[in-house]
Order: sequence, then structure tokens, then C-alpha cells
Amino acid sequence: MKQMIRVAVVGYGNIGMYAVRALQEAPDLELAGVVRRKVNPAQSPPELADVPVVTNIAELGKVDVALLCTPTRSVPEQARELVALGINTVDSFDIHGEPLLEYRAELGELARRYGVASVLAAGWDPGSDSVIRALMEVLAPRGLTFTNFGPGMSMGHSVAVKAIAGVKDALSMTIPVGSGVHRRLVYVELEPGTDFKTVELSIKNDAYFKKDETHVYQVESIASLKDVGHGVLIERSGSSGQTANQNLTWGMRINNPALTAQVMVAAARASTKQKPGSYTLLEIPLVDYFFEETDELIRRLV
Amino acid sequence: MKQMIRVAVVGYGNIGMYAVRALQEAPDLELAGVVRRKVNPAQSPPELADVPVVTNIAELGKVDVALLCTPTRSVPEQARELVALGINTVDSFDIHGEPLLEYRAELGELARRYGVASVLAAGWDPGSDSVIRALMEVLAPRGLTFTNFGPGMSMGHSVAVKAIAGVKDALSMTIPVGSGVHRRLVYVELEPGTDFKTVELSIKNDAYFKKDETHVYQVESIASLKDVGHGVLIERSGSSGQTANQNLTWGMRINNPALTAQVMVAAARASTKQKPGSYTLLEIPLVDYFFEETDELIRRLV
Repeated sequence: MKQMIRVAVVGYGNIGMYAVRALQEAPDLELAGVVRRKVNPAQSPPELADVPVVTNIAELGKVDVALLCTPTRSVPEQARELVALGINTVDSFDIHGEPLLEYRAELGELARRYGVASVLAAGWDPGSDSVIRALMEVLAPRGLTFTNFGPGMSMGHSVAVKAIAGVKDALSMTIPVGSGVHRRLVYVELEPGTDFKTVELSIKNDAYFKKDETHVYQVESIASLKDVGHGVLIERSGSSGQTANQNLTWGMRINNPALTAQVMVAAARASTKQKPGSYTLLEIPLVDYFFEETDELIRRLV
Repeated sequence: MKQMIRVAVVGYGNIGMYAVRALQEAPDLELAGVVRRKVNPAQSPPELADVPVVTNIAELGKVDVALLCTPTRSVPEQARELVALGINTVDSFDIHGEPLLEYRAELGELARRYGVASVLAAGWDPGSDSVIRALMEVLAPRGLTFTNFGPGMSMGHSVAVKAIAGVKDALSMTIPVGSGVHRRLVYVELEPGTDFKTVELSIKNDAYFKKDETHVYQVESIASLKDVGHGVLIERSGSSGQTANQNLTWGMRINNPALTAQVMVAAARASTKQKPGSYTLLEIPLVDYFFEETDELIRRLV
């Protein structure tokens, strides 16, 4: 029998919670424990009753892979620390473009030095959507791809609104208008005495919103509106060779943190099959995400 | 400047024709020539006027990769011959399951002996659809996937009907009914004096058709009905970790041989980046299909 791969979950917000559940379903992965900034057994959620919860990953014994389920901006520093301990890392770092490239280059060098593998941007966008966009270009190299998000809650936009003075709680919904254009519906719960019109204007002038059609609504309670359902529709019309009008689409309607956590768990398994270095999902063959043997996958899926 | 990869097209039916066009669009690939069973310059199609057309691949000088655009049943033998010449091969072998596994194992051994890489089943089903089915299971490991083909012409079914006595020409259309179930619409052009009812009964009792709802129509001319448009809709509803109702879809409306040829051309490029052996698309990272550098792909697509 193969040895179980021991995986630690670092951070226990939405994604960490779903990562624990996804690990419990994986036949070859074992939850080594959860790492949190503070541990208060009295306030620990009931589902972690039988799970080691620690503040320092060293307390968990041997750990093969750490899933970084913490905010994106804290991910690179945490990854560096874990890699230096000889632990593979997986994250869903979500700042596309140069920040991801720089992070990949820097962590890759460190990972090769310490002999570990790190998988970066292992969520759905970036993540599985990136795989789809690449596959679409393999099939039809010339053309345009549109990524239409939602309807669903945008974490980044919601946080930006919450930072505005007088806003008690906020929810920013991303609504796809088509051809990669989005409308923003922003719901705000205000502190007493706050002027709605002032808040509305601040939102519409914010860098997060000013390029998009934005509607702001005042509501009594944000809590009753929150839902982690999300979706995407990726469309490409392009040419294969010299033949135009090749039409490709990918669509998802999903629980957002559950999907992100599942991708990270599959990437944890894949990390154990890579040579030392840092990887995005485009650089890993699909067979590596699976527990099953390659022959069985080919029999079932090819 | 990088040296061009020299690619030969073996067979010049529908897929071979589109492969030539796709090669002409690739910045890093060079059409070494076309290999046909017989070469008759008087009957050569005008688009091959400036292309070397030969009966023996050795006449084309150095060839890095051969695209096998011949009927599936002749592919394994041709691949063995080319691999023994030290030439990478790419095919769209389309018999799923054991035949593909046996072919992969046998050719893999030969390829390792001769130091070349072969990419098998590089079309759209098997091929890019296999990649999608695998990705869907990465995202939602438990659940059901339905592959719905068409509407579009089925080559295999059309050939089976043409083999029936009295059938001059035939076209079998695959119509998706949903949940992976298909209806067959069969159009037949009959030889004079042939009884339609007899032909209809033969078709409905044929192994290719008897499990599906099949309708047979007699027409004056098949030629006017033929169209290489095809499509697929792949649907999966499954669980990510313990979270159900994750809904994923992939759809295409495409020119069938143009898409197949494009996948083969991308696989030709990828073959030059693999270690010796035989590969399905599930075993090759997406970056390897591209001419662009990995950093540029990550910047653009991740």
C-alpha cells in the first residue's frame, strides 16, 4: 500500500474549511492538521474537534504539503517559509500577470534549492479557467476569448467597499453583461448617520468600480444576501489553421470556495509528482492530479 | 533563431488537407512534404503545387515529426515504421479503451528504444474532449459526465451503412438527445432496383445502430447533404469535496477535420518537448503545445 500524503491546511476561513472537507474525501491524502494564527480550543469549530489545530506547522510532525488558505497578499511570504522547511506548497494566489510571474520565479528558485515543489494560482480563475483558456488556444490559435464572470460575489470588490467610511458591511455582485464586460451591483449596510449619496459616489469613483457600470443599493442587512454561489462562461470564436468560426464555450455554476479548495487538494497530490520548482496549472499534466493510475484514467476518460 | 521543426503529413484525405493548412499558419513548423500511397502529378490538387509529394518519407530529407492522417486501423503499423526511422509520430487514433491502451504500451516501448516521442489520440474525441473530462473530474471528483455528440456526421456509422448491399452512398448523422443518448438519422442513396425497406431493416439491425433510436431516409443525392460541421456538449454535475451541485459544461460547434488537424499540429510541436515514449493528451502539460515561452503564456492566459 502506498503511504498517505500528509497535508496541512494553513488558514481556516471559507477555503480552509472546504479544504478540510475535500481532504477527508481523498483516498490518498491525510489531514495532518490545521494551522491558525491563534488557537482557542473553546472557540474551535465543532468539525475540528478531532483535528490537530496548531499555530506552528512544526507541531504537526511530518507534513508533505501545505495548502495556503490565507489572503493572497500574505501567501508569498508564507510560501517562502514553508518551502525553506522542505514542505511543498499549494496556493490560490490570484493576482494575474506580473505579480504572479515574479512570485513564481522567486519561489521556483527557492523550491529548487530546498528540493520541493510548489503549485501556484491553483483555484478556478486563475486556475481551471486558465487551463480552459489555454486549451481553447490550442484548438483555435487565432481569435478572441471572453471570460464572463458571475453572477456571483466578488470578494475583492466587497472588501474595497467595506473600507469606505460609514460602511458597516457590503456585498459586490459581479453580473456578466457579455463579451467580457461586467456590471457591478453593490449592496451596502450603513452605520447610523451615514449619507447614502456620499457613499454611492465614493464607490462609483473607486478604482475598482469606475470602469464598470455600477449600481449601489442600501439594504438593512447584508448577511441575508450573502451566497457563495458563483459562475463563469468562457467563450472563444477562432480559427483552426485557416478555418474560421470554431466556437468553443466553457461554463460553470458552482460553490466558489468548495471548487477552489478541491483544485488545491488535487494540486497537493500533483505537487508530490513534480520535480523541484514552482508550477502553474498549465505546466502540470492532467494525469498528475489523480490518485488513479494512468492506464485506468486513459481507459475511463480518453 | 530557433530551427524550424520539419513535419510531414502522411495521408491526404480530409484531415491531411487541413493539417497542411494548419502547418502553413504555424510560425515554428515547416511542412516537409506530403506522403501518399500513389503520386500522380497530373491529378495532384492545386494547393500542393509547391509541396513535395512522395510515396516514401525518406525522400523528404530530415523529418522531425510525421502526422498520421490515415484511417485509424492503419495507424499503429505506420507509427511503428516511422518510429523505427527515428521520427516522432502524432495520430488521432480513435478507438477508445483497450485498443488505445495496447497501442500506447507497444508504441511506447518502441519509441523509448528509438529515442522518439509519439502523441496518440490527438483529436477532439479522443483528444481535447478527454482533457475536458479529466479536468471536470479534477474539479468535481464524484459525479456523472455526459458526452453529447452532434449534430454532425459520424464517419464510422456512414461507412457501416455504405457496406450494405444496394447502398450507393450514405450519411449517418448523430443527433444528441441529452444525457449521453443519441439518435441516428441515416440518409441513403440506393442503387437502382434496391428495396428501401430491406436496406432500412439491415441498418436498424446493424451493431452500429441497434442500440440507438434510428431513422432511415431515402434521398436522391447524398453529396448535397454532406457537411463537416460537428459539435459536442459535455456536462458534469458532481461534488467538490463534500459539496454537491457543481455544474460544469463544455461545448463546441466546429469544422470537424479542421479541429482535428489543428490538435495534431499542436501535438507535433509538443512531441518535440517530451522524453522518448508514447503519450495521450492527458500526459502532456498545456504549455508544451505552444510556440510562445511559458512566461508569456502565464502573463496572457493564467
